[in-house]
Amino acid sequence: MIKHLRSAADLDAPTAILILDTAAEMAALAGREVKKLPTLRGRTVVNLFYEDSTRTRISFEAAAKRLSADVINFSAKGSSVSKGESLKDTALTLQAMGADAVVIRHSASGAPHRLANWIDGSVVNAGDGTHEHPTQALLDAYTMRSRLGRLAGLNVVIVGDVLHSRVARSNVLLLSTLGAKVTLVGPPTLIPLDVAAALAPGTEVSYDLDAVLPTADVVMMLRVQTERMQDSFFPSAREYARRYGLDAARMHRLAEHAIVMHPGPMNRGMEITPAVADSPRSTIVEQVTNGVSVRMAVLYLLLGGK
Amino acid sequence: MIKHLRSAADLDAPTAILILDTAAEMAALAGREVKKLPTLRGRTVVNLFYEDSTRTRISFEAAAKRLSADVINFSAKGSSVSKGESLKDTALTLQAMGADAVVIRHSASGAPHRLANWIDGSVVNAGDGTHEHPTQALLDAYTMRSRLGRLAGLNVVIVGDVLHSRVARSNVLLLSTLGAKVTLVGPPTLIPLDVAAALAPGTEVSYDLDAVLPTADVVMMLRVQTERMQDSFFPSAREYARRYGLDAARMHRLAEHAIVMHPGPMNRGMEITPAVADSPRSTIVEQVTNGVSVRMAVLYLLLGGK
Amino acid sequence: MIKHLRSAADLDAPTAILILDTAAEMAALAGREVKKLPTLRGRTVVNLFYEDSTRTRISFEAAAKRLSADVINFSAKGSSVSKGESLKDTALTLQAMGADAVVIRHSASGAPHRLANWIDGSVVNAGDGTHEHPTQALLDAYTMRSRLGRLAGLNVVIVGDVLHSRVARSNVLLLSTLGAKVTLVGPPTLIPLDVAAALAPGTEVSYDLDAVLPTADVVMMLRVQTERMQDSFFPSAREYARRYGLDAARMHRLAEHAIVMHPGPMNRGMEITPAVADSPRSTIVEQVTNGVSVRMAVLYLLLGGK
Repeated sequence: MIKHLRSAADLDAPTAILILDTAAEMAALAGREVKKLPTLRGRTVVNLFYEDSTRTRISFEAAAKRLSADVINFSAKGSSVSKGESLKDTALTLQAMGADAVVIRHSASGAPHRLANWIDGSVVNAGDGTHEHPTQALLDAYTMRSRLGRLAGLNVVIVGDVLHSRVARSNVLLLSTLGAKVTLVGPPTLIPLDVAAALAPGTEVSYDLDAVLPTADVVMMLRVQTERMQDSFFPSAREYARRYGLDAARMHRLAEHAIVMHPGPMNRGMEITPAVADSPRSTIVEQVTNGVSVRMAVLYLLLGGK
Repeated sequence: MIKHLRSAADLDAPTAILILDTAAEMAALAGREVKKLPTLRGRTVVNLFYEDSTRTRISFEAAAKRLSADVINFSAKGSSVSKGESLKDTALTLQAMGADAVVIRHSASGAPHRLANWIDGSVVNAGDGTHEHPTQALLDAYTMRSRLGRLAGLNVVIVGDVLHSRVARSNVLLLSTLGAKVTLVGPPTLIPLDVAAALAPGTEVSYDLDAVLPTADVVMMLRVQTERMQDSFFPSAREYARRYGLDAARMHRLAEHAIVMHPGPMNRGMEITPAVADSPRSTIVEQVTNGVSVRMAVLYLLLGGK
Repeated sequence: MIKHLRSAADLDAPTAILILDTAAEMAALAGREVKKLPTLRGRTVVNLFYEDSTRTRISFEAAAKRLSADVINFSAKGSSVSKGESLKDTALTLQAMGADAVVIRHSASGAPHRLANWIDGSVVNAGDGTHEHPTQALLDAYTMRSRLGRLAGLNVVIVGDVLHSRVARSNVLLLSTLGAKVTLVGPPTLIPLDVAAALAPGTEVSYDLDAVLPTADVVMMLRVQTERMQDSFFPSAREYARRYGLDAARMHRLAEHAIVMHPGPMNRGMEITPAVADSPRSTIVEQVTNGVSVRMAVLYLLLGGK
């Protein structure tokens, strides 16, 4: 088993499949009302969050607690960090306190990789800048497999601000490892062609959402980073929604079996309409549920073998 | 048993009495040093706080932990909420993560009712705007019964800014259900006559504190919302204290057995003097202790039967 | 056993030694992978932090959880305190909720002493203003003993802004109790001569770091409170570093066996250079590890006997 999960690139196909299978076992146990496992009793999981992300933090916290780990939340706001403490010194502190795993969310791409150099415990990347968010990709893959029965050969369309999306990046890497085909769709200024190719050869790019919908098995809508829209490329949110938003009309162009995904939180009315978000095709709520199972599997496999 | 506790109106007399009796058992166990019960092991209680209220959050957190539940604190400040996530999407997230109960504090009246439409777990209202705070009313009723031996027929005087008080509202409802008689006292502008009558027929209103003290069994002083005093109805805090504050002189006009209550935190010197707050008649500290027992009982009864 | 740990002056030599010996047992258990002890099951430890101090809070939180206590974090920011609640009313609340121990960090010197008057549980001072930080002194003593084999007769040099340092104050008291000899070094304006003498007769003062290094067994560098440097006594950080910073050249003047300590978080390049901080003489990371063992011992001994 790998020791850290810093990037979706840490996962080869057998390891990724093992995590998805383990997550399925966790979900099955929860379904049989076995909600608390003793596996990680006495282990300490630290949530080291340099950016606010309540949803992700809660998901990891719930996962760790169901495995009976002790969870310590460390919000870097108002901590020693504000007194100028470096990531290295924080790492050494957590290391010295005996953290068995550190789940890190950081605004700087690559922070989890640096952290892994300094601590003996496992590092799990919970989102680093615009770089990666590998457990999101795992829960997305889990959701696709559970809805559609397989991953290999799936046609996955990812729509939106790919340039700034760690979710897109980790998904491209993992889906490529698992044999799915990814098409990125968005405004030309927000699709880094070279990056897409470098990440995973075979990744396609399109600027025309309507053209790619009929052959998609999965449509994954990215969150519009409205905080980045100011200096952006569109006259208005309405114009963005018109060209790249998913509404009922577009949804009806999808194949019967195709599903609609979103990592949340959504801008209802911007990249997705409420009718689509709440339709039976939407897996948005399942993704959250699956997130806990997948994070249980990750923590279990990273820590359980020791 | 009821599923949610959104309002004191959710409680009929037998249910309210069952909660008070269960709370008494919880208190008895704690008194015998049985501080940890396994009842809610594996259950997850989320404290979803859109407003700061450390006292209430800690009370629920302590209650849930004594029942061995896992507790996740979700402060809406700096969360996805600040990215514009709706209460509905937050609810679906908590639901999807498997929250068995959500304890919600929100500035909007009615938020707990809306939340209950969206999740399968139990909703407990920990204060919604100026609307209700039903566990406060339960702990107040528990305290009266434990000090005075009964609730039916008690003469309860509630003093202060009734208009903006969720504590007053929930108390009027619950005390009326349990057969006590409530008199509301305060400045005319802060006593909503029609509302009082609509809430519970038989509720009386007075503008003269001194007139009602001699026949009171219970005097409950409300916290003055000093943040609302600016646009208010009194020349000064001193004037308020003179007319509606409880000092030693007024306390001595009470019957021998009468008790003084306050939901906390107090403005010592404003609505209550330190001499009164710290007198043997004061139940202020007991109310806090009883709050944990009552919240244990509520969580136990809402979740235990599943 | 003592009931509270408000000050290093609460500790006579046998009590301090008992805590250090107990901490050594805790560390030995952790070394044998016994990471969770059932000792404080059902007990509630409240971290009452009026100032941010993530490192100290996490250390206490980890210690309490390893002893199976329930931990409740109470950050006074945004709490009832901001509505004007007094420390006394907060204390009564925690008392009423059944807190078995309250770990308090407060900006006001003496706050832990006042708190101890109002609650039945144990009070542990986690830093009060510029006054004291007794568990830091205990973990420092533990680290010295573990590195050098003894405390009596050790020559300990404490360097920096002694005037504002609660770490220095508690160390002077405890080290004196345990028979070590302390020399305080720093700018004349930052060394309170009279205070030093009053704290512990025999404490020496020097303004010349280079003069005292050769005979030191321990050099403890204090954190420069950069927030206090504005209205300070030095033309620049560089000037401070030149006269009172520990760099490799100075480190080489130390005796072979001498160690370098720092309570963290460090200003690398200010009071200590990275080369020194990361050298084998440095105990900075061990201090953090020892902090958890020492705090386990303190909580165990304060609460365990009940």
